[in-house]
Amino acid sequence: MAYQVDLNCDLGEGFGIYSFGQDEEILEHVTSANIACGYHAGDHNVMARTVQLAAANGVGIGAHPGLPDLAGFGRRPMKIEPEEIYRLVLYQIGALAAFARAHKVRLNHVKAHGALYNMASQDATIAQAIAQAVYDFDPQLALFALSGSQLVDAGEQAGLKVVEEVFADRTYQGDGRLTPRHHPQALVTDPELAANNVVRMIKEGKTTAIDGKEIPLRAETICVHGDTPQALRFVRQLKQALQQHGIEIRRVGSG
Amino acid sequence: MAYQVDLNCDLGEGFGIYSFGQDEEILEHVTSANIACGYHAGDHNVMARTVQLAAANGVGIGAHPGLPDLAGFGRRPMKIEPEEIYRLVLYQIGALAAFARAHKVRLNHVKAHGALYNMASQDATIAQAIAQAVYDFDPQLALFALSGSQLVDAGEQAGLKVVEEVFADRTYQGDGRLTPRHHPQALVTDPELAANNVVRMIKEGKTTAIDGKEIPLRAETICVHGDTPQALRFVRQLKQALQQHGIEIRRVGSG
Amino acid sequence: MAYQVDLNCDLGEGFGIYSFGQDEEILEHVTSANIACGYHAGDHNVMARTVQLAAANGVGIGAHPGLPDLAGFGRRPMKIEPEEIYRLVLYQIGALAAFARAHKVRLNHVKAHGALYNMASQDATIAQAIAQAVYDFDPQLALFALSGSQLVDAGEQAGLKVVEEVFADRTYQGDGRLTPRHHPQALVTDPELAANNVVRMIKEGKTTAIDGKEIPLRAETICVHGDTPQALRFVRQLKQALQQHGIEIRRVGSG
Amino acid sequence: MAYQVDLNCDLGEGFGIYSFGQDEEILEHVTSANIACGYHAGDHNVMARTVQLAAANGVGIGAHPGLPDLAGFGRRPMKIEPEEIYRLVLYQIGALAAFARAHKVRLNHVKAHGALYNMASQDATIAQAIAQAVYDFDPQLALFALSGSQLVDAGEQAGLKVVEEVFADRTYQGDGRLTPRHHPQALVTDPELAANNVVRMIKEGKTTAIDGKEIPLRAETICVHGDTPQALRFVRQLKQALQQHGIEIRRVGSG
Repeated sequence: MAYQVDLNCDLGEGFGIYSFGQDEEILEHVTSANIACGYHAGDHNVMARTVQLAAANGVGIGAHPGLPDLAGFGRRPMKIEPEEIYRLVLYQIGALAAFARAHKVRLNHVKAHGALYNMASQDATIAQAIAQAVYDFDPQLALFALSGSQLVDAGEQAGLKVVEEVFADRTYQGDGRLTPRHHPQALVTDPELAANNVVRMIKEGKTTAIDGKEIPLRAETICVHGDTPQALRFVRQLKQALQQHGIEIRRVGSG
Repeated sequence: MAYQVDLNCDLGEGFGIYSFGQDEEILEHVTSANIACGYHAGDHNVMARTVQLAAANGVGIGAHPGLPDLAGFGRRPMKIEPEEIYRLVLYQIGALAAFARAHKVRLNHVKAHGALYNMASQDATIAQAIAQAVYDFDPQLALFALSGSQLVDAGEQAGLKVVEEVFADRTYQGDGRLTPRHHPQALVTDPELAANNVVRMIKEGKTTAIDGKEIPLRAETICVHGDTPQALRFVRQLKQALQQHGIEIRRVGSG
Repeated sequence: MAYQVDLNCDLGEGFGIYSFGQDEEILEHVTSANIACGYHAGDHNVMARTVQLAAANGVGIGAHPGLPDLAGFGRRPMKIEPEEIYRLVLYQIGALAAFARAHKVRLNHVKAHGALYNMASQDATIAQAIAQAVYDFDPQLALFALSGSQLVDAGEQAGLKVVEEVFADRTYQGDGRLTPRHHPQALVTDPELAANNVVRMIKEGKTTAIDGKEIPLRAETICVHGDTPQALRFVRQLKQALQQHGIEIRRVGSG
Repeated sequence: MAYQVDLNCDLGEGFGIYSFGQDEEILEHVTSANIACGYHAGDHNVMARTVQLAAANGVGIGAHPGLPDLAGFGRRPMKIEPEEIYRLVLYQIGALAAFARAHKVRLNHVKAHGALYNMASQDATIAQAIAQAVYDFDPQLALFALSGSQLVDAGEQAGLKVVEEVFADRTYQGDGRLTPRHHPQALVTDPELAANNVVRMIKEGKTTAIDGKEIPLRAETICVHGDTPQALRFVRQLKQALQQHGIEIRRVGSG
């Protein structure tokens, strides 16, 4: 039996004169790009350039909507009603889709960013608002969602193709959530260990939480980072390990 | 022979808790709505509400992109390169189109706002950037442009349907430009005089500039305002006069 | 024995072309003005005009710092660390103080806005951050704080003059907090009832919560609103009632 | 006779998660720091950190106000009336001064940024607005201004101590202006040539423009950059050359 998995990365997170990450390098390694839409990062210039780069690399182009908080990079929870979440996601998908359209490529998927991603993982009403916005924009779009989270359920109920996501460089808690970044065991920095974890997620559908509990997961796409030289090295080693274990790296998404 | 003309108005120009204009009232009188897209005014909440209102009134929904200057309401000229103008127009059209899409209505047209409108009227490279952004988003969209301006030429060269615009409440200079707002003769406040001017523009294709010169014009859409009770009264009287002169008020656009 | 109380109002909450409230009218009635500093509302133009107006009316000029959320008017809770709260309050006080300085008037007080006010009432670390920012800017400044809240304690511990605030148009819960706005009994709309409540707060140092419990309060300043014609009428009636009960309306603050 | 000159550098130009420049390294080399105030770059966190760093290095702390254009880094000319320029400069000085005050250091000077600096160099009304804002905030503050520009005159007329500025890494035009950045001869990249130019400016009060014309200059402070490793090297070599020519590097300002 053949295994396969998608690799996704957040991209286009610069702003104005500020650059961020190593988009060109990481684009050679991933199959899906989550492109910031101007709320937590990115602007019309960065978006134009990033969509062009992603299209040139044949990578799936995704909208990466975030909270309206450039100063906080969309990482700070804000109390926003679900009705407004629906609208801010719709706005951002539309803005990014315009650049895809101008490059005559299809929008592939949507993945929420930072605090919005976390809120959607745990709060069903936020999850539903996001899923509905994606569906109302285009029911063919894939929705990337933390495996096992509220957003997976909301996406499926809305009638969307949901792609379940796992993290190679983060550990999990017994309840299936990611261990928060400030926790001493939050990160997996050893690429070999990360690769073994991911291979097990893909082949066995589970992983071991930091409290020793086995938790079920579906690993359809793996979130990787490319914003430092170490992150890039990590991705290269992870890919190699996946290939050695017979796991094909292959883009998923809308069709 | 039957005459007809479109009436357009800027709408959705509130922001956050701030309201602006009397959108509900004016929507009963116009045929095309130019809806702010979040750069000079408007936000995702205002856009959602305004698109819904416009759709409910059967009014043509247009994107109204402006310069990125909320504090200045997009009225202050900024030095921005044509490449960036292309991108900021594309971004804004995309964002607004998402709300139209969610309401299952077509986007009808694009009209630039404030300083961007003025820059596009006079600068061929800015005009071309805007026309290209509209075309690349959707070649079926109509482009509203100051009659006789650079933007009319740019739109036609790009292959767009151009709708030439005149102003009922503003006077013209001998070179075809609007008299700047700070000029003592800039405004036409008498609805009867305004109506007569507009009727002549529609039927004879010309108007008299403030220096006495006759200037040629095509009046395919008339820009009106609805942000004060007086403005609303002005629109009502203008409509009445147009009907008395046998001019049908009829929506134009993509379609 | 003579009773006295200060009346304070939020002012200068417009932005760009957007006006908000009836600053000129309310300034004739209050003794302290809390002026927005550009984060939740206000900008350098509005601040200049409002400081000038307040100075001309002999009203105490206060900084009214808020969360960095213009779109949400500073009313949405955001997760921000106390260290950053300290800095954003310092920034805003400094910006407003510059206009006071240019008008050769002293800054009188600081009052936090909206969600920041609520966070500071309940969270001791946020309260301490605000109190320290005020103290580090100028230890002579008065700190306006919800009577009985964490911010009162933090201000006193920092060595500031704290002015305890009550609300005439809001009800209280048994724990001393304001009843949230969405609660059916949140508002006191009858000016006579409001006046009686406030007179009792001033003379007896207590009020009756919506659950019937008596709660202790110090009423050194009363928060009033002036953003609607009804709000203005309410203030006028409240003032009249206070005067009838022998309560002098008198500015408090630094100095 | 003893010669002396100040070295100034723009600092604190990051924003949110975005870093910019090598502030810690350059602070060991300069005597005056121009710190961004949140309009073109910088935010309350960056400002707090940068003021602290500058104070710890004993460097003169200056406000570096810019146009309200974070996306364009304050480099794009915008049409803003002098009355508003006055207010936006006052706001920014006040905000930065609050951090100096919290660190118990005096504000030393003000230097306008980017497009605002250029506008003030050439337009007397803009120059007067800036000079008046500085004076109204604190008449003891030094005003840094392009040598020979309108801003020098405006500062002197306002009664301020003006510090005339020259550029080591830029060439001059015959009219005394800097050669625009897009010009092939705009930059001086050879540190030895730059040092010789500067030494001549300091000792002889003149330099040779790119058209061969001799232009008079007063070199009281030299603007240097530290945002790249090459820029840092350039500064080190320039300092060495100045010392070899007996020119003392010494802070100027409000003291």
